[in-house]
Amino acid sequence: MNGPVRSGIPEHGRLPKYYAVKGQLTELIDELGHGGMLPTERELAVRYGVARETLRQALRELLLEGRLRRRGRNTVVAGPKLEQPLSLASYTEGVRRQGRRPGRLLIGLERFSAQPDLAALLGIAVGDPVWHLERVLTADDERVGLESTCIAVARVPELDRDFDPDSSFYAYLREHMGITFGGATERIETVSATPREALLIGTPPALPMLLLNRVSRDQHGEPLERVRLLYRGDRFSFTTELRPEG
Amino acid sequence: MNGPVRSGIPEHGRLPKYYAVKGQLTELIDELGHGGMLPTERELAVRYGVARETLRQALRELLLEGRLRRRGRNTVVAGPKLEQPLSLASYTEGVRRQGRRPGRLLIGLERFSAQPDLAALLGIAVGDPVWHLERVLTADDERVGLESTCIAVARVPELDRDFDPDSSFYAYLREHMGITFGGATERIETVSATPREALLIGTPPALPMLLLNRVSRDQHGEPLERVRLLYRGDRFSFTTELRPEG
Repeated sequence: MNGPVRSGIPEHGRLPKYYAVKGQLTELIDELGHGGMLPTERELAVRYGVARETLRQALRELLLEGRLRRRGRNTVVAGPKLEQPLSLASYTEGVRRQGRRPGRLLIGLERFSAQPDLAALLGIAVGDPVWHLERVLTADDERVGLESTCIAVARVPELDRDFDPDSSFYAYLREHMGITFGGATERIETVSATPREALLIGTPPALPMLLLNRVSRDQHGEPLERVRLLYRGDRFSFTTELRPEG
Repeated sequence: MNGPVRSGIPEHGRLPKYYAVKGQLTELIDELGHGGMLPTERELAVRYGVARETLRQALRELLLEGRLRRRGRNTVVAGPKLEQPLSLASYTEGVRRQGRRPGRLLIGLERFSAQPDLAALLGIAVGDPVWHLERVLTADDERVGLESTCIAVARVPELDRDFDPDSSFYAYLREHMGITFGGATERIETVSATPREALLIGTPPALPMLLLNRVSRDQHGEPLERVRLLYRGDRFSFTTELRPEG
């Protein structure tokens, strides 16, 4: 058993200069409040007595963390992260609850033949036709995520004809097909966006993203869909209620 | 409603050179398998016909994503991410289930007076004494996370005397104090480590981390503890079972 070490910065550690500036900027951010505009880089570098590059490193981290946002050529204080419940409620519902306006932009809806891994997850035969529906998720017209759904064509044969891709897919399943959810297994991790994903969502490629992989079942316990949900890490957090086991 | 766009790289996007190399390295990683050692940077740059800096960018991303690890001066293929259930089961249990050996290193155990925010969360008066227990979490002796717990001293008055900081805190609550969990609210997000956290966990400061903020209640529904759990984003993923609402 190790003896307690005094908390604070470990002795062998030095607080990097940019990090001290980041602390000062954080205070400034709190003062300015949501939507407040930061002075120019030049003014800030002078104010804190540091090199432009040092200042930029601090700004870069605050941008990646979602404390700041670019608006045109300005830098403004960002609002709090959206808090989405980890639930089978749709994206739509979670965003609306927070008073934001949800939307979706269709990237593609294509048919392809199921490879062995996907076939096993969806409970279909290898080679069976599958829909791949890909949409950018928006909140108040800002691109915040990317949703990629695979579902057997046999489940929703008319998806390309009677589904409005700017509407809730889960509402479509419920109202058009009588399919509701029995449950899902979800895995959450942090990843960096691929260049393609970064382009589609409009994020800097270095931005950490939250990736949710979901495999859901219908009301009869049959495999239904595989969904890959990629959310901007600087805009989203997820909440869940934990219950005791057993 | 936007018309479908062909999937693949959007037309205005170019695949960066480093990203093509990353794809080739990913194939190599799959061939080598867990624990396999990569050739030197110089050999790889020659093999793929790219500049050292281009190669390094691809390696850097694969390291941040947890596909590769440094072992001394070598680079080896990493194992899969640990999958922890999002549950009130302890860290110990989750890690053991995956055949890894959990451990903890005590960083500090200190008493302080509750500020208003914390007092409200813990259901105590402002200024009441609170324990702050901070531990580095390990798996097979590798540092993988940082746990920071705040709990009212009135709940566990002897924590500094009869608690072995290398053991499970939840087991201590249960066995010494008769306290079990009634539930918890958890928030999950991705953040970058502070320099102090990066030093304690031994990660590069740019590494995306998964942050779990938990406020838990005891079996009577009374507020119990606030926990901040920071996990290496390249080593952990979290899983949960979703059930229909209502």
